[in-house]
Amino acid sequence: MKAVVIHAAKDLRIEEREIEALEAGQVEVAIEAGGICGSDLHYYNHGGFGTVRVREPMILGHEVAGTIKALGEGVSGLAIGDRVAVSPSRPCNHCEYCLKGQQNQCLNMRFYGSAMPMPHIQGAFRQRLVAEAWQCHKVGEKVSIHEAAMAEPFAVTLHGVNRAGALTDKRVLVTGCGPIGALAIIAARAHGAREIVATDVMDAVLLKALSIGADRVINVASNAEQLSAYSANKGYFDVQFEASGNERAVRSGLEVLRPRSTVVQLGLGGDVSIPQNIVVAKEIEMKGTFRFHEEFGLAVDLISKGRVDLKPLLTGIYPLEDAVAAFEAAGDRNKAMKVQLVF
Amino acid sequence: MKAVVIHAAKDLRIEEREIEALEAGQVEVAIEAGGICGSDLHYYNHGGFGTVRVREPMILGHEVAGTIKALGEGVSGLAIGDRVAVSPSRPCNHCEYCLKGQQNQCLNMRFYGSAMPMPHIQGAFRQRLVAEAWQCHKVGEKVSIHEAAMAEPFAVTLHGVNRAGALTDKRVLVTGCGPIGALAIIAARAHGAREIVATDVMDAVLLKALSIGADRVINVASNAEQLSAYSANKGYFDVQFEASGNERAVRSGLEVLRPRSTVVQLGLGGDVSIPQNIVVAKEIEMKGTFRFHEEFGLAVDLISKGRVDLKPLLTGIYPLEDAVAAFEAAGDRNKAMKVQLVF
Amino acid sequence: MKAVVIHAAKDLRIEEREIEALEAGQVEVAIEAGGICGSDLHYYNHGGFGTVRVREPMILGHEVAGTIKALGEGVSGLAIGDRVAVSPSRPCNHCEYCLKGQQNQCLNMRFYGSAMPMPHIQGAFRQRLVAEAWQCHKVGEKVSIHEAAMAEPFAVTLHGVNRAGALTDKRVLVTGCGPIGALAIIAARAHGAREIVATDVMDAVLLKALSIGADRVINVASNAEQLSAYSANKGYFDVQFEASGNERAVRSGLEVLRPRSTVVQLGLGGDVSIPQNIVVAKEIEMKGTFRFHEEFGLAVDLISKGRVDLKPLLTGIYPLEDAVAAFEAAGDRNKAMKVQLVF
Amino acid sequence: MKAVVIHAAKDLRIEEREIEALEAGQVEVAIEAGGICGSDLHYYNHGGFGTVRVREPMILGHEVAGTIKALGEGVSGLAIGDRVAVSPSRPCNHCEYCLKGQQNQCLNMRFYGSAMPMPHIQGAFRQRLVAEAWQCHKVGEKVSIHEAAMAEPFAVTLHGVNRAGALTDKRVLVTGCGPIGALAIIAARAHGAREIVATDVMDAVLLKALSIGADRVINVASNAEQLSAYSANKGYFDVQFEASGNERAVRSGLEVLRPRSTVVQLGLGGDVSIPQNIVVAKEIEMKGTFRFHEEFGLAVDLISKGRVDLKPLLTGIYPLEDAVAAFEAAGDRNKAMKVQLVF
Repeated sequence: MKAVVIHAAKDLRIEEREIEALEAGQVEVAIEAGGICGSDLHYYNHGGFGTVRVREPMILGHEVAGTIKALGEGVSGLAIGDRVAVSPSRPCNHCEYCLKGQQNQCLNMRFYGSAMPMPHIQGAFRQRLVAEAWQCHKVGEKVSIHEAAMAEPFAVTLHGVNRAGALTDKRVLVTGCGPIGALAIIAARAHGAREIVATDVMDAVLLKALSIGADRVINVASNAEQLSAYSANKGYFDVQFEASGNERAVRSGLEVLRPRSTVVQLGLGGDVSIPQNIVVAKEIEMKGTFRFHEEFGLAVDLISKGRVDLKPLLTGIYPLEDAVAAFEAAGDRNKAMKVQLVF
Repeated sequence: MKAVVIHAAKDLRIEEREIEALEAGQVEVAIEAGGICGSDLHYYNHGGFGTVRVREPMILGHEVAGTIKALGEGVSGLAIGDRVAVSPSRPCNHCEYCLKGQQNQCLNMRFYGSAMPMPHIQGAFRQRLVAEAWQCHKVGEKVSIHEAAMAEPFAVTLHGVNRAGALTDKRVLVTGCGPIGALAIIAARAHGAREIVATDVMDAVLLKALSIGADRVINVASNAEQLSAYSANKGYFDVQFEASGNERAVRSGLEVLRPRSTVVQLGLGGDVSIPQNIVVAKEIEMKGTFRFHEEFGLAVDLISKGRVDLKPLLTGIYPLEDAVAAFEAAGDRNKAMKVQLVF
Repeated sequence: MKAVVIHAAKDLRIEEREIEALEAGQVEVAIEAGGICGSDLHYYNHGGFGTVRVREPMILGHEVAGTIKALGEGVSGLAIGDRVAVSPSRPCNHCEYCLKGQQNQCLNMRFYGSAMPMPHIQGAFRQRLVAEAWQCHKVGEKVSIHEAAMAEPFAVTLHGVNRAGALTDKRVLVTGCGPIGALAIIAARAHGAREIVATDVMDAVLLKALSIGADRVINVASNAEQLSAYSANKGYFDVQFEASGNERAVRSGLEVLRPRSTVVQLGLGGDVSIPQNIVVAKEIEMKGTFRFHEEFGLAVDLISKGRVDLKPLLTGIYPLEDAVAAFEAAGDRNKAMKVQLVF
Repeated sequence: MKAVVIHAAKDLRIEEREIEALEAGQVEVAIEAGGICGSDLHYYNHGGFGTVRVREPMILGHEVAGTIKALGEGVSGLAIGDRVAVSPSRPCNHCEYCLKGQQNQCLNMRFYGSAMPMPHIQGAFRQRLVAEAWQCHKVGEKVSIHEAAMAEPFAVTLHGVNRAGALTDKRVLVTGCGPIGALAIIAARAHGAREIVATDVMDAVLLKALSIGADRVINVASNAEQLSAYSANKGYFDVQFEASGNERAVRSGLEVLRPRSTVVQLGLGGDVSIPQNIVVAKEIEMKGTFRFHEEFGLAVDLISKGRVDLKPLLTGIYPLEDAVAAFEAAGDRNKAMKVQLVF
């Protein structure tokens, strides 16, 4: 089978790999769609991020869906031919965090396509993937395999919504309207946010944000004053989903958030400088959100029942052979939202 | 009557002021003890902090207690001769925040000794203070007026404890053992913290921290590795009370906090640089805490019933005339914890 | 002007009343639609409920909307001709509960059409109502006055949703599909409930429940075993909205709720017998919910923006003169969901 | 070895049993003290409770402590001679509840001395107990084995405190001052409850309650009006720990609880009749609490560090041979608080 393998920055290859042996409790999935994520792009463009570096060839990818081709011994509830979204998250279920129900913080996590441990955890951009049955969630009949492959990034934003607490009656600010910011808009809307204002520095993504559920969008490169107008009376927003990882987005958010409001930090940046006096005086709560656990099944369910429509976010589909072109396209925020490979 | 008036940085004067008229619902209090707070020191040493500047003569002080000398019309529940701690916090009880029970975020707050609005809000370092009856909380018979005057900074840390949520079974890190950090240790201990480790860069204050309830203290100037040892398995502490306002204390705390832990930021600094990737990956919650509201009455109650002992924190008492010496002493962290004036 | 006045059980009269004087900060509203609520029916059918009895003639009604006809001095943000939903809730904003942000628990509440205090609080089923400007919420242009008049009961269920906490990923059971149960289905669906199963003893209301958003309905009179099947593995539902006030609904809910789940009690009954051992062993949380506060504005907003559709719940509209017929119709659960008067 | 075996109501025998084989990860403990719990008494007096019946001989007991006599393979962190409190709770750590961190709700729980499943789970009133190493918590040097054996019931009340949420500034009502009520007073006091009022119908236990930390006690058999005086202004208490299982205690609590207050139900009764209208109108939260999980280690820690003093609760120590006398004594609430066996 073929797989998409990163060797170093800008060195992405299509290589042959052996299909893994199918063990009890596992299934073999023919991967049909795989979305390119920001971390995949970091490996491709920079060979890693922060202190995480590609130190050996690694299959990329963790946003995948496909069709079951074989069942290992003892698998029930799944059948050959089932179309499934495959969760890339494999917690150990034995460490102290797993036994506290915090599986996304598992000390022994094996998340597809991660160069953090050595040997690296191989990813899921490959024609055949052998996965645990419990990683596989059946998708509804009317759902395309491309929507199914968006369950993973959508689950990330659903976990962010869980971290935010109830959104009933909440005014929400979303900063950064790339794929995660856009999915956060959809997730917040589906859970009752009263009002959603979204910001970015590119008009193209803001138009997309408007079309998928934002009540208002602001280009903070050209119209920053439209955002800062919300700072009257100590601020306006109850919740900020910060999906840019950008220091200015964090700082401008703090200006327009109300006392006792919450920032859910989805975007990953490096060091950011924070005005501590504002955080203290307005008693703002900044909380990180990381991956997901039970939200993967929820994502598949919401997509399958048509309660959310993720199709508008798909901006490009490339065959496996054109993986390099796909990665180049995915890196162009001006044109691409979510780019997927087909296998 | 005499009052302690700041004119500019290092220009502190004892001046004559008129006693205010006593109106209905008010009481006249002979102030007997007044503690010097960090913000008083900022006005004295620097003429203000951040963008807040002394622009007209202002009476300093907001940590005061004394004896009631006269009752305005309609006052009930208080009598001449009652010893009271006086809350410096006067919310409007009409703005949107007050009507949400967030009086410490009042849009029209008149907090004693604040140069934020113009005209400034005059403070309470004066021989006679006319206050609303509801600001005055009777103290227990066995409590000295000096302990009573510590109700205010203690209330600040009780509000911090409220912001942290239940401390049952929690491992607590306190960074910075000045008066607020020390009071946070006492407040956390009184509310069931399982274990308290305190850090500072001065041995003198750490010894004090140990004597008032910390289980362990670490001088992070000389023994930083003792703290960083707690970073194993993603961290050890469930809650950090950050009372230094120092960037290194914030950053080193993030290293040793567990996933889903909480930082309560008490100390006020300017811009601090935060490693966003740690906040996100460990899903840490950083929340500001600001002043107090109902916690003032709680502070007086805990002091009066002997459930906490704040006396060890009092390190100096100066007569009104020696206010400048008192302010100089209060600014020497090596020798002073809490310095009070007597009137 | 004419008003709908209850004198005693089954003694409902249309009477002439003086229009109240318009004071500063108030508006005069021509009431155009008024929904009959369960408490109105209790006054009509039984002369009260529990210990609350009609002891003097009282105008009924608290679910009203209309058009502004006159503005008192100093009113801003409203204009003559504006169509508004009028909140029947008038908390004092001075008592201890109001100052904690719990206005629905106000010690001095004046809620339209209540015989609890003496003199009774007169209600809003009248041709002209003088109300405080802040009670009046403008409705969107596309919204009929009948939908606007449903803001009040919808707000009751939104407060129930607030009491339940975030509904993300939650399996919800709604017991009792009268107007409040039906609105609870709509409110829960709008705030992200993953799955909603509704029960009642009448097929007609269950069909309605299905049409407005329930995923499944069960007639527990004829198919109780369909509900009890959910009791496997300690239960299935995370949240129950109990809108029947019926003891069997409470008890059967406890059987199918999961450990650590929540019952939000909306329906008002008298004494109900609870199996304490189940509440303890499954650590279930039963919480009451009472009226609403900030949820009234939210209700108007959700209706105005078309985020919810309450129109299917309106089953009858009667002219003022036929108030008795309207009350009789409203009392027939088999045929009526929400019955309104027009003025 | 000898064990205390229940055969039927009032048929308690001291019998010989084989010591279990010691497997890897296990330790053999010489049990030295064992407290008699309410459920033990139910088996002894009535042969069970509710639908749970003794259907085969069963060793009773689950509140035990002793000294390690042998170590199984691979045990670390424990040594022969260590004195330990042994948790009776053995969750599977694999079911859906364990993987959510709700081990006390484990679907496959094996809790010592329970006749719920068949075969029954044998208890810990025996001279030698083979337990998993992780069940055993070392106790401090100054702690007697009798205090160590109180870790289990204390853990029950600590879990109750966890269910209540933060007790900072909270006024607490404890109804029922048997062993669990008394331990709830100690647990609440150790976690910062502002004020504790305790009720019972026996003066003897109320005197004990006063001596261990209650601020006030009320005999509701003779002075019910002292309790009902707290009902002014909608109520006084923020939290009720209901440790009697008695309907009148539940109902009288609802009268004196404030709006939005919490009842934590510790006591196990059968059906209780609740005034639903009060629960709804005051929006009271009634929540069950069941056993414990991580609170066992906390209990041992608080006892070992001397942060709580449980010694006053021990009212009788009987040798194994006098088990019947011990059970008879334990059943006399007038004289006994906690009765233990020694082995």
